Amino acid sequence: MLELRLVQGSLLKKVLEAIKDLVNDANFDCSATGFSLQAMDSSHVALVALLLRSEGFEHYRCDRNLSMGMNLGNMSKMLRCAGNDDIITIKADDGSDTVTFMFESPTQDKIADFEMKLMDIDSEHLGIPEAEYHAIVRMPSAEFARICKDLSSIGDTVVISVTKEGVKFSTRGDIGTANIVLRQNTTVDKPEDSTIIEMNEPVSLTFALRYMNSFTRATPLSNTVTISLSSELPVVVEYKIAEMGYIRFYLAPKIEEDEEETKPQI
Amino acid sequence: MLELRLVQGSLLKKVLEAIKDLVNDANFDCSATGFSLQAMDSSHVALVALLLRSEGFEHYRCDRNLSMGMNLGNMSKMLRCAGNDDIITIKADDGSDTVTFMFESPTQDKIADFEMKLMDIDSEHLGIPEAEYHAIVRMPSAEFARICKDLSSIGDTVVISVTKEGVKFSTRGDIGTANIVLRQNTTVDKPEDSTIIEMNEPVSLTFALRYMNSFTRATPLSNTVTISLSSELPVVVEYKIAEMGYIRFYLAPKIEEDEEETKPQI
Amino acid sequence: MLELRLVQGSLLKKVLEAIKDLVNDANFDCSATGFSLQAMDSSHVALVALLLRSEGFEHYRCDRNLSMGMNLGNMSKMLRCAGNDDIITIKADDGSDTVTFMFESPTQDKIADFEMKLMDIDSEHLGIPEAEYHAIVRMPSAEFARICKDLSSIGDTVVISVTKEGVKFSTRGDIGTANIVLRQNTTVDKPEDSTIIEMNEPVSLTFALRYMNSFTRATPLSNTVTISLSSELPVVVEYKIAEMGYIRFYLAPKIEEDEEETKPQI
Repeated sequence: MLELRLVQGSLLKKVLEAIKDLVNDANFDCSATGFSLQAMDSSHVALVALLLRSEGFEHYRCDRNLSMGMNLGNMSKMLRCAGNDDIITIKADDGSDTVTFMFESPTQDKIADFEMKLMDIDSEHLGIPEAEYHAIVRMPSAEFARICKDLSSIGDTVVISVTKEGVKFSTRGDIGTANIVLRQNTTVDKPEDSTIIEMNEPVSLTFALRYMNSFTRATPLSNTVTISLSSELPVVVEYKIAEMGYIRFYLAPKIEEDEEETKPQI
Repeated sequence: MLELRLVQGSLLKKVLEAIKDLVNDANFDCSATGFSLQAMDSSHVALVALLLRSEGFEHYRCDRNLSMGMNLGNMSKMLRCAGNDDIITIKADDGSDTVTFMFESPTQDKIADFEMKLMDIDSEHLGIPEAEYHAIVRMPSAEFARICKDLSSIGDTVVISVTKEGVKFSTRGDIGTANIVLRQNTTVDKPEDSTIIEMNEPVSLTFALRYMNSFTRATPLSNTVTISLSSELPVVVEYKIAEMGYIRFYLAPKIEEDEEETKPQI
Repeated sequence: MLELRLVQGSLLKKVLEAIKDLVNDANFDCSATGFSLQAMDSSHVALVALLLRSEGFEHYRCDRNLSMGMNLGNMSKMLRCAGNDDIITIKADDGSDTVTFMFESPTQDKIADFEMKLMDIDSEHLGIPEAEYHAIVRMPSAEFARICKDLSSIGDTVVISVTKEGVKFSTRGDIGTANIVLRQNTTVDKPEDSTIIEMNEPVSLTFALRYMNSFTRATPLSNTVTISLSSELPVVVEYKIAEMGYIRFYLAPKIEEDEEETKPQI
């Protein structure tokens, strides 16, 4: 039997909003450690990894490891029916082919339960090794979202270049070019407004803006985002989930960008 | 001659927004008692009854009973041009085929008059007898609107079941099932937040969510909604209009729901 | 070399939003006096004239007169990437076929530069002689925008009639007629809320609402709008830009309106 009670139910609502457009169907894995998900996006280019640790739940009962296949669009439809202050409980009986989401209003005057059919989904869990990164940028998540959105109005790809002084986001398109530079900046009033760069060596990598924009749907989950870059590795775009875990998005850099640019843009 | 002056003009704007999508054309009936309307929705399934009592108007002159046929879409277009703080006066000369809506800004610096052609509309006034209901639920109107909207993302119909303890709204659809229970609750800070159940006998009835959602367009008119249920009668969904009257929506329950469910859903 | 630094960058953003839907491509003319533009709308019916005086810029360097052809849609895409508190600098090298927009955040932690290709645009500068107008109406810009929008829901043209007592905006359409009268009114708390009429002789002119609505896109630039009317001249709808200049829209009145009305409305 599974029973996971999350007082801050809005977190789960935000998690679904963050990933439902990227991933259609996925297995949620429950174990003593926590509630997690790993899935490729529907075009098999980006990878999403979610972890909500068991300690973050008010009540966490998971008698045996369980993998529950869900359609994220349908799950999101149900979670949208939870109020932002509701307590959400996820329940499943052993061997059942359904999962139940229970929403309790703070005053307990309104109790809703939504039952959803589970799906059989083939998936292999990729081992993601810990890695050393050339550069790690921590910056306000809203600023990162704004930059990705702004650059999308000019071009299709973004070059992210990190030096000790700052991080540069560049694009080019039919109407012109754009460069946005954020300076390292640690002397702000609120720590979450700072831009912090840890750099072992300079790095400059190109990514599809379409995916970057998708990742920024997770912005409501955290004030800051951490971008880890290495020339031989997929970038990791990480949003911490307050005291519970994280959502991490992985995306391989575009290679041979000069060749790419000679091809007609679609 | 007709001249009805309504200081809180926004009420009339809200009334039109509440009914214009449900009813295309309707007769407004003016008498010494008040300004009223009774009309079937365009698919002849639901009935709307509106009453604005003469006492609620600052000035109410109606020399003889008058029935004015109006296109509610056009009337709404005109009323949307009134400011929310405007005083609205409805004027018609005897025998005239037009009606005039006059909007005065609170400072009297802006005066608008909109003249609309009247229509000949056949309609028969249904007598709606006072009835005893098995159960009457009074609840916050915003909560009722939220529940109808939420359930619509899962299914097409709602089962409303009332017991002494509370009222349950249920639906089922392709992606699963949903049950939302509101408990009787009278010990809230604000009386309009309470859910109050008067029950003579338990009742459980099924309705099309499409119509329920339409009725909730009246939510801005009142903080509370009253739902009167009886197994042999149409449900009455009533929004009181502050010290002036009401909008009531009537909808027959769906019968033989089990048979219905075997038919393909559209 | 050209370098124009505008501390209140949001003004330039608002200017582009005001004119980009009316004019596709236009030459911006830079001289020692200021940064200006004059262009016909794409259907060659209305004329836009913009002036931002050099004194309004924090830094204004313009070595020689320069005319820069820009696509306003693309320019607007780039300016939308500037924050509302950003300082905007417009830069161009002599003989260059590009212009650069630089955006600096107030804290200087974020610096963006957007480079756009210039275009060759044929245009002739019309001399607009100073003229005497029969009537000049100054009124709140939001009120003018509201009136144009409201009347558009009823008809296609507006008749603006000015007398000493006030200004009347009228329209007629299939569903009826509308008249909105604003009274001269100078005793308001805030000067920008007043409606002031200077009249030499009464005037009544008809204009296409489609263009009037377009002009009201400039509303965010100024709390007041000035409408100058004369029976032999195009109307001038002017929005002052705080201490820097103005946007003026010119539109010829519709003549023979009675004949027009016998034609089928589109």
